[in-house]
Parts: sequence; structure tokens; C-alpha cells
Amino acid sequence: MTKYDVSTSNSLYERAKAVIPGGINGHYGFSVKKNGPKYFSRSEGSRFWDVDNNEFIDYMCAYGPMILGYNHPAVDEAALKQLKAGNTVSLASPVMVELAETLVDMVTAVDWALFSKNGGDGTSLAALVARAATGRQKLVKVAEGYHGVAAWMQDGRAGTIPADSEHVIQIPWNDVEALQKAIDQHPGDIAGFISSPYDHPVFRDNELPADGYWQKIETLCRKNDIVLIVDDVRAGFRINLAGSNVAYGFTPDLICFGKAIANGYPLAALAGSDALKQAAQDVYFTGTQFFNAAPMAAARATLLELQKIDAANVMTSIGNKLNKGLIDVAASHGYDLVASGVPAMPYYRLANVDSKTHRMWIDECVGRGVYLLSYHNHFVSTAHTDADLQRTFEIVDDAFTTLGPASAQIQKAVPS
Amino acid sequence: MTKYDVSTSNSLYERAKAVIPGGINGHYGFSVKKNGPKYFSRSEGSRFWDVDNNEFIDYMCAYGPMILGYNHPAVDEAALKQLKAGNTVSLASPVMVELAETLVDMVTAVDWALFSKNGGDGTSLAALVARAATGRQKLVKVAEGYHGVAAWMQDGRAGTIPADSEHVIQIPWNDVEALQKAIDQHPGDIAGFISSPYDHPVFRDNELPADGYWQKIETLCRKNDIVLIVDDVRAGFRINLAGSNVAYGFTPDLICFGKAIANGYPLAALAGSDALKQAAQDVYFTGTQFFNAAPMAAARATLLELQKIDAANVMTSIGNKLNKGLIDVAASHGYDLVASGVPAMPYYRLANVDSKTHRMWIDECVGRGVYLLSYHNHFVSTAHTDADLQRTFEIVDDAFTTLGPASAQIQKAVPS
Repeated sequence: MTKYDVSTSNSLYERAKAVIPGGINGHYGFSVKKNGPKYFSRSEGSRFWDVDNNEFIDYMCAYGPMILGYNHPAVDEAALKQLKAGNTVSLASPVMVELAETLVDMVTAVDWALFSKNGGDGTSLAALVARAATGRQKLVKVAEGYHGVAAWMQDGRAGTIPADSEHVIQIPWNDVEALQKAIDQHPGDIAGFISSPYDHPVFRDNELPADGYWQKIETLCRKNDIVLIVDDVRAGFRINLAGSNVAYGFTPDLICFGKAIANGYPLAALAGSDALKQAAQDVYFTGTQFFNAAPMAAARATLLELQKIDAANVMTSIGNKLNKGLIDVAASHGYDLVASGVPAMPYYRLANVDSKTHRMWIDECVGRGVYLLSYHNHFVSTAHTDADLQRTFEIVDDAFTTLGPASAQIQKAVPS
Repeated sequence: MTKYDVSTSNSLYERAKAVIPGGINGHYGFSVKKNGPKYFSRSEGSRFWDVDNNEFIDYMCAYGPMILGYNHPAVDEAALKQLKAGNTVSLASPVMVELAETLVDMVTAVDWALFSKNGGDGTSLAALVARAATGRQKLVKVAEGYHGVAAWMQDGRAGTIPADSEHVIQIPWNDVEALQKAIDQHPGDIAGFISSPYDHPVFRDNELPADGYWQKIETLCRKNDIVLIVDDVRAGFRINLAGSNVAYGFTPDLICFGKAIANGYPLAALAGSDALKQAAQDVYFTGTQFFNAAPMAAARATLLELQKIDAANVMTSIGNKLNKGLIDVAASHGYDLVASGVPAMPYYRLANVDSKTHRMWIDECVGRGVYLLSYHNHFVSTAHTDADLQRTFEIVDDAFTTLGPASAQIQKAVPS
């Protein structure tokens, strides 16, 4: 196989740098590598094409939103029908009510929903609701857990100030005692505990909840009147359509959804229990674009389609096949590929070579049409077919062949 | 004229309350009045229809986004073409670059742009950039100035905590000395001053900048290395297409755009000067939906169309005609209607009667098909025709007739 030419992407990127700080900002900047594609031209099903017309089987799924395949007919039809009727108008849309009903029917722990654009809108709203409901200040989160770009969640990046996260306490993942300790240190002042359903940070293996972890967390929260917030923005609909918490046997008070909820149309939701409905009504939460009707119509169509095809189980099955196939291909070249996290959101690491070799392997896969990232979980969709997987394994095999056997890499890595 | 029946809206609202806290949240809740429409069914040009099929000439324009008329053909065509190619994909889209170029060409004070969804995303980013650039903590804003729903801008509403706005200083509008005083009280610690180009709060007359106000503010900011941020989210493109600051003769460092930038498709932008480009690159700013390509295509088409038809001047002319016509109709019934703010965003107040009468008048207008709000600025669009204005004046005349002459209202308001 010939490696892809990305010269059109590179030219456009140079042009972009003149008018966009960094050329490509935020998490989309993860794509910026000299020999990597940077701009898409079109997308369809499980694949996208870059501006150099290279084709990619996509395991990033737009960082999550794509769950039923790009340009899904039923979702697009619902969105376009609503667009034609009206999208952003001076009144709310009936589809907002229908969508809330659909979501609340599907997700067992919740009774109401409020809509916005990004997952981070929902996590910030969850913080407001938890504080309004309890009259307390502190929020506990898991260290390195990402809950959006708001300053209070940014852990001290450029432009933030200490006051932003002064009342945010960080504890390790899977550490019940750390939550107990935080409660003891701040008696009666912890408003909420926010966490993804399992730990999916960047740059390290993802980690599932230990047996009994969530039950103990739930018990601690109930005992201390702490609002239990699940950030299901990333994992939502890829583990269990009734809420990822259902898979782990616990019941949160608030669940944040985003990303996949509308298969790529911009929408997010905070959903919650009746006990927090009044607090959710008391806080002020709005945005000019929160009421766009077309993304709500897309979301409703997405949720109905997900249910119709039992999508979470479908993706779990695809993810398991993908993991097994990749691990086998890696092993045939002497590489120990570790897949962590849930099957529909696998994080990959070559465990018996150094991280540079791992990154080189990822680049070789991307350069031949399998779109992966070296330090972030991946996503599968219901549009990934067996043929996609077979083609993926062929490309990945070729990438390993180019790299050479693991034994050679290991020798290279060890000083002679 | 018969007043509109809104029973379908009311039924849907009752249904909504079961699954959405408050039924309709945020600023869309402003529409919740017993005899007012609450949900739209369709929109076109300057008008929308509610779920009871009542027709409205719309002077709220979706609270600003609608600037070229609902369902504008050129904007929709650009958005749909991009939707078909791909909207939210694992790579950035070429249209992001083209849009940044178009915006930077059009808005004279700025050299770069970063895109997001809501105006509030941009104001929060502006705060990060100002703090990153200066290494300072404090932000000065105008009291009652609205810059989005983020906790740091919420002025102590439910769920916020003191730390959220601990470093936000409020000063009165049109008060240069108050900024000087803030600088003196916090020497070397003011990162930025954020303000809309003129004062457009709710519940009171809007106020233009006093002669020389912005020049003095600019001088103070330059002298003290304070980042000057214009929040043009609401007024942007309705005063001057090159930036509202151009109309008032000053040059900010950062300008926040949103609302009308994509004629109803969800997009916002922060644009800035080259001097702040590195700071904008240093901060982390992202969101799953920030990179949706279709709204960017819509925004580019919107900006090109606005330029093509000299839209800001068109809307100023329409707004002037609207104001004059309404003032004349009001006067013919003995009412003193005050229009404040810029012509394309008029705030109305009946000055010689009590506020209850003012609200009753607004309700009578809405109930006959002229969509107004009693305590918020309005918006005109380029789609508002002379025929719309004539029909508006007829309906408003009828509303005044139903209300009775001002003299009767004044007598009612004065205890006998």
C-alpha cells in the first residue's frame, strides 16, 4: 500500500493559520501531524474522505457524535423536515417536548430534560443544579476526568484563575475512600460528585469501575445528600441505551448527554430525577441556540433508531470483534496490543514497545486509511460493517509490516 | 379583529411541564403568558405561525438570529449542501477556514476568529484570552450587561457561588470615571473590560454611548494594558457590518459575535487582533459541536448576503420607519411611545401610562399577530417589508383601540 498524500490538507492548514489561532483549535488540533489528514471533504456511513480525496474508515466518529453512520437517512430526513418548517424561531418548538418525552422514556433514571449544545453546557448546568438543590459549594470530580471546557473544569490551564476551580475537589478513579475523605474534610459542603460512568482519560489505559464501586459511591452520596452526577456525554448510548449507569447497577440523580445524542447535529441534554426538578427550574439556563429545532428532531430520530436496532449491543459486538481482530494482527507481528475501556469505545496501547513506536504505528494506520488516535479512546458506530473490519485488519497488518516486527522495535528501544 | 386562540399552545405547554422543568426554560420562557403563543409550527421570511396556526409578524427574530428572514434560500442552500457533504466529522472542514477569512475581511478590527455555538461560549473565551494575555484576574463589566449564562456572568442567580464572580467588577454604563476608579482600586490586576457597544438591558430604556465615551474607554484601556472586549453578540451586523465599534469610532481587541451570524444556524465567534493571537492559541477552547460544518457554511452565506445587500443600513432604515409608525399610531390614541436603542433593535416603552398598561398593550399586539416583548429590545430583519410595517401599524392601532385612549388609562392609574 502507498501512504496517503496530504498536501492539500497541509496547504489549507497553512492558509488557516493566518486567520485561526493555531490553524485548527481545540481537540480537532489532535489531527495536526505533518503526514496526517487535517480537513475532510465528505463523509458517508463509517467513512470520511479528506481534501486530498483519501478514504478513511473512521474510528473516531467525530469524537463521538457519529453513532449511526455519517449522513444517516432517517436522522437527516427528520432534521431537514424540521429545518424546512423552522429551526430557530421566537417560540419553542413542539419537538422539544417530544424529544424530552422520548429521552425520559428511554433513560430509566430520569424524569425531565433540559437541552443545550455541547456536553459542557450540561455539566455546567449540573453544577448549578447541584449547588442550587443543596445550598453547598464543593464539587468532587475524578482527577483527569474531562467534563468540558468551562473554566471551572479546566484544571488550571492558560487563562483560568484559581477562583475558577477553588471549590472543585479532585479524587482518584475507583477510590471510594477518597470520596469519604473529601466528605470528612468538607462536612456538609459537598454539593455533587461528577464522574463519567467509567474512567476514559487521554494518554493512559481506560479503566472500568471496580466491583461494587458505584454501589458504594451511591450509598455515600445518599447518606450525605450529595447530588450524584453521571457525565455520560462520551459513553452515553454506547454501553446501554437506558443510561450507562444501568450497566453498572446504580442510579444517579443527574445524567449529562451530548455527542452521539443527535448523530452529529449539535445537541446536548441534562436529564434528572423528579427530586431535582425544582432546582433545575430555579436556575437560569439558556442560550440563543439551545432551542434550535432541527437538532432536536435529529436527536429524536437518533434515539428512536438506536432503540429500534438495539444499537448499544450492536456496537459492543462490533467493538469486541474490532478488538479481537486488532489484537490478533498485532500478535502476528509480535506486538502486545492492549484494548481498554468498553468495547464500543476502545483505547489502544502497544504494551511491549515504547510510546514512540506506538505513535508510529498509529501514524502508519492513519496514513493508509484507518483513522485512529494514539492517546484517546476510539468510537465505533452501528455503521461499521464486517467488511470495514476486514479492511481495517488488512491496513493495520500492512502498518505493522512497514514498522517491522516488535522484536526489532524492542531492540531499538534498548540501548545497546 | 378577533384575538388569537392559543389553546393548542397551552395544551402542549401542560404536557411539556411533565418532562421539562418549567415547561419552557431560559429566555424562551419569556413567551409563557396565559393568552400568548408558546410553540411555533413554521416560519418564513418575517413571519412565523404558532401551533394554533396563528400568524405573527415577528419583531423578536428568534431573539436575534433571524436577520435575513426565516428560511433564507441562499443560507439554507449553503447549509444543506454542506450537510450533504458532511457536518460533524473527525476532521475540521475547509469552510471553517473560508468563514474565518470572510469574517476577518468584513470586520475591520480583527485578524483571526475562533468558532463556537453560543455567544456565551465566545464571551467566556474572551475572558480566558484576556486573562492569559495579561496574567491578571479581574474583569470589569457594565452592571446588568448580559454576556451569557456562564456562572461567572450570572450575578448571583440560583446555583452560583460567590467564587464564580469574585473577580468580576460591575460599573455603570456610560461611566468612564467608574472604570478609572476600578483601575485605581485594583492596580495592575484588570485583565479586561467587556461591554456591549451600547447598553441594551431588559426592563429599561436602552442607552447609546455618550459622545466621546468609547474614545475615553479605549484610551484608559490602552494606557493600562486592559483588553477591550466588545460583546457584539446581540447588536452585531445590525449597526455596522464592519463591527458595531466602527459606528462609535473605536477599536476593540476582541469582538464576540453570535446570534445573527448564521441566520439561525447555531454558530458564534470570537474574533480578535493579532496582538492577542498567541494568547488565543495558548488557551484551550473546544466543544464537540464547535466544528459543525453546516452552520459555518450558513454563516459564510449569511455574511456574504449581508454585505451584498448592505444589510445594516437596510435594517436601520426599516427600524426608523417602524419606530416612526408606532410612535404615530400611539400618539393618535394619546400614548407617548418611547423607542430607545439603535433603530434595528428598538426597545419600546409607553411613557405616559403605568407599566401594567404597557404590558397589556404588548399582549393586545401579540394577540393580534405582532410579536413583541414588553421588557426586551426587539429586532428587525432585512425581510421586514413595507407591507409588514403597514400591517403592523393596523394591528397596533387595533390594540390601542381595544385598550382605550391613554387618558382613560391615566385616570385609572391615579387613585380617585
